[in-house]
Amino acid sequence: MSETDGVVEVAPVPVSEAAQPQTKKRRASENGLHALQKNGSMEKDKNVDDSYFASYSDIELHRTMIEDSVRTNAYQQAIFQNMEEHIRNKVVVDVGCGTGILSMFCAQAGAKKVYAIDASKIAVHAKQLIEANGYSNIITVLQGKAEEVELPEKVDVIVSEWMGYMLLYETMLPSVLYVRDKWLKPGGKMYPERAVLHMALGEAQWITKYEEGTYDFWVSLNHVYNLDMSLLADHAVARYKDVVHVHMVAQEDVLSFPTSICDLDLTTITPEDLRTISRPFSLYSMGSRQLNSIVLWFDVWFPGGLKLSTSPDNEDTHWQNTVLPLATVPLQQDTKVEGELTITQDLTNHRFLNVDLTYRVDKGEEVTRCFKMDDNCNDNDF
Amino acid sequence: MSETDGVVEVAPVPVSEAAQPQTKKRRASENGLHALQKNGSMEKDKNVDDSYFASYSDIELHRTMIEDSVRTNAYQQAIFQNMEEHIRNKVVVDVGCGTGILSMFCAQAGAKKVYAIDASKIAVHAKQLIEANGYSNIITVLQGKAEEVELPEKVDVIVSEWMGYMLLYETMLPSVLYVRDKWLKPGGKMYPERAVLHMALGEAQWITKYEEGTYDFWVSLNHVYNLDMSLLADHAVARYKDVVHVHMVAQEDVLSFPTSICDLDLTTITPEDLRTISRPFSLYSMGSRQLNSIVLWFDVWFPGGLKLSTSPDNEDTHWQNTVLPLATVPLQQDTKVEGELTITQDLTNHRFLNVDLTYRVDKGEEVTRCFKMDDNCNDNDF
Repeated sequence: MSETDGVVEVAPVPVSEAAQPQTKKRRASENGLHALQKNGSMEKDKNVDDSYFASYSDIELHRTMIEDSVRTNAYQQAIFQNMEEHIRNKVVVDVGCGTGILSMFCAQAGAKKVYAIDASKIAVHAKQLIEANGYSNIITVLQGKAEEVELPEKVDVIVSEWMGYMLLYETMLPSVLYVRDKWLKPGGKMYPERAVLHMALGEAQWITKYEEGTYDFWVSLNHVYNLDMSLLADHAVARYKDVVHVHMVAQEDVLSFPTSICDLDLTTITPEDLRTISRPFSLYSMGSRQLNSIVLWFDVWFPGGLKLSTSPDNEDTHWQNTVLPLATVPLQQDTKVEGELTITQDLTNHRFLNVDLTYRVDKGEEVTRCFKMDDNCNDNDF
Repeated sequence: MSETDGVVEVAPVPVSEAAQPQTKKRRASENGLHALQKNGSMEKDKNVDDSYFASYSDIELHRTMIEDSVRTNAYQQAIFQNMEEHIRNKVVVDVGCGTGILSMFCAQAGAKKVYAIDASKIAVHAKQLIEANGYSNIITVLQGKAEEVELPEKVDVIVSEWMGYMLLYETMLPSVLYVRDKWLKPGGKMYPERAVLHMALGEAQWITKYEEGTYDFWVSLNHVYNLDMSLLADHAVARYKDVVHVHMVAQEDVLSFPTSICDLDLTTITPEDLRTISRPFSLYSMGSRQLNSIVLWFDVWFPGGLKLSTSPDNEDTHWQNTVLPLATVPLQQDTKVEGELTITQDLTNHRFLNVDLTYRVDKGEEVTRCFKMDDNCNDNDF
C-alpha cells in the first residue's frame, strides 16, 4: 500500500520539518474502509481511523472545504465577531485543524496560544503554512489523535469543524467532546456550540430523472440490439433507492416545513448521547406533489448567535443535503406523513451510520426502510 | 460489510433461481482493494478478487459498458459478420459475461451452445435476462471464476470483453488465456484476437487548466482571508501529476504519431508474457507545443479484421484514454522524445499496474517517473 498508511502517529508529536510530505493521491471515497471486518474490534477501529485520517491528507479535500465560502466565512466571522470577548489573549485548541486555516483566523483575532491538532499528514503542511504566515510563535501543530494529545495547559476555547454529511457522518464529534471534557476550562467556549439536524418531505427531481432515464435506457436496448433487458431497470432503480444520497436539493423540492431530529447543546452533550438519535415526526405536505424522499440538513450556531446553515433555502455548501429515497407516493395538500427516524453509529465501522426510517402516509401502511450511510453515499462520486 | 462479500462461488455452479439478487450498491472505485497487505498472498489475492467481482455486481457499471456503443456495436458486428463461419452451430464460451449481452448476440447469431461465465453476482441477472429472451436452451450461465469452471466440452470460440483502462488494467486477460489453454479447441477463434497498446506525446489541456486553477485558488486566499496558502498549490499539482489519469484526450492534444508498446497475438500470448511489458520509444513532436503528458490508448481486432479503437481520433469510449502527466516542457517542431515505458503487474494487488517511464527530451537529462495505476486513476471519480 502507499506511504499514507503511516499517517497516524500513535504518540502525538509536534510536527517537525523532517516529516515526509505525502505524494500519493488518495480520496475520501477511497479510504479503504471495507475488508476490515475480520479484525478484532480495536484493530478494526484503528484500521478504520488510519484510512479516515489518510483520506484527509488529500489536499483536494481541503480545497473543497476551504472553497466552501459558506463554511469558511461562517468560522471566520464567528471568530472575528467575538474576538474581543472570547479570542484575544485566550488559549484555543483547533480539533482537526487540517491546513490550519481556523487556527490562523484565531491568531489573526489575537489568540495568545493556539494548539492545532490533526491526526492526518496534512498537519505537516499546516505547520509550513503557519510558518509562512508568521504565526509559529502562537500556533503549535500537534500531529496525533485528539484523544491522545497532551496539551501543556487547559484551554478557553475549542474551535472545530467536525461536521460531516447529515451532521453526524464520519463520527468526528465524539473526539471533540473528548477534548472538551479533558481540556476545556469550566465555562469555556465551543465553536460551534449548538447543532440541529432537520428533516422534511421531498420530491427530489433528480431521483425522478434517474428513474425515468434508467427505464428508458434498459428498455431502449430492445430496439437497438433486439434484446429485452428491461428486467434490469427495476433492479437498478431499487439499488439507487436503497442508499443514502448526498446531493443538493432545490428549495422548491422541499414539500413540508422541517422538523428537527436532534438539537445538540455541544457544551453538555456526551458521546453516549450520540450513539442513537431517534425522534418521532409528523410532517404535512405543502401542495399536491409526488413524495419521493426525506430530505435532511443541519445548522450549527456559534457563540453570539451566528448560524452556519446547510438548508436548501441557503447557498450551496460542500455538505449538500442528505436524501433518503422513498417509493413515490402522490400527496394532496396537507397530507400527514408520520413516523420515526433513528440514526445509529454502525458497529462494524464506527464512522458509518445506520439510518432507520418508519413512516406512514396518511392512513396507509407503515413502511420500514433501513439505509446504510457509508462511503458510497456521495453522488458526486457517480 | 455487505452481502456482496459472498459473491464468488468457490465451486462454480449453474446459477439457480434461488440465488439472492444483491441489493447493496457498490462501485468499481470502492472495491476495497486497500488495507489487504497484511494477509498472506493467496488470501490477499482472494480478497482482491472478491472485491473486484463485487464491483461488477453493480448494475451501473454494466450500464456504462453497454451504453458505450463503440464497444457494444463492435462486438455485435464482429459476431454477426462472422456468424456463418465462426458462430452458427458452434460452441462458444463468454468469459466474464456480465449481463450476458455478448452471449445473447452469439445465440442470435446461431450458436449451438454458449457457456456464459461470470464470478460476480451479476450472473444471477444474466440468467434472468437469458430466460426472458428465450435463450435458456442455448446459453448456460455459470457463476464462478473462469479458472475454476468445468465445462462439459471443448469450445470453438472464446468471446470476452476483458479490456481495462490502458488495455491491461484489472488484469483480466490472464483468466481469458487460462480458459483458452484449457477449453479452446485447436484452431478455435478468439474474439478479439489481437490487441495493441499505443502511446504518443500529449499536451492535455485539462492538465494545464487544473494547474492554473489550482495556483489561482490557493493564491486567491491571500486576498480573501489575508492568509498565504500558496505553498499548497505546488503540493496539489505535484500530487495531481503523480498518478495515472483516465481521461478523454482531444485529437488536437496528441502531439506526435503514436508508437506501439505491445502488439499481443491473443491466440498465442501467455500470462507470463504479460507480467512485464517494456518497450523503448522515440517520438517526434508535430508543431511547437507544450509537452505535458504521455497519452496511451488501445485497439483490438476481431477475426475478419473488424477493429475496436479507443484512439483520440475516434468516438469516445468508456475506456477513455490513459494519461501520464509530465513536467511541462516546450517542444519545437520535430523535437525527439525518447525513452522506455514499462508496465508491470503490481505485486501487492495483482489487478493494479505499475507504469515506469524514463524519457529524455532532445538532448536533455533523462527523467524517471514511476506511476501506480490503482483505483484512484479514473478522473470521473473526482
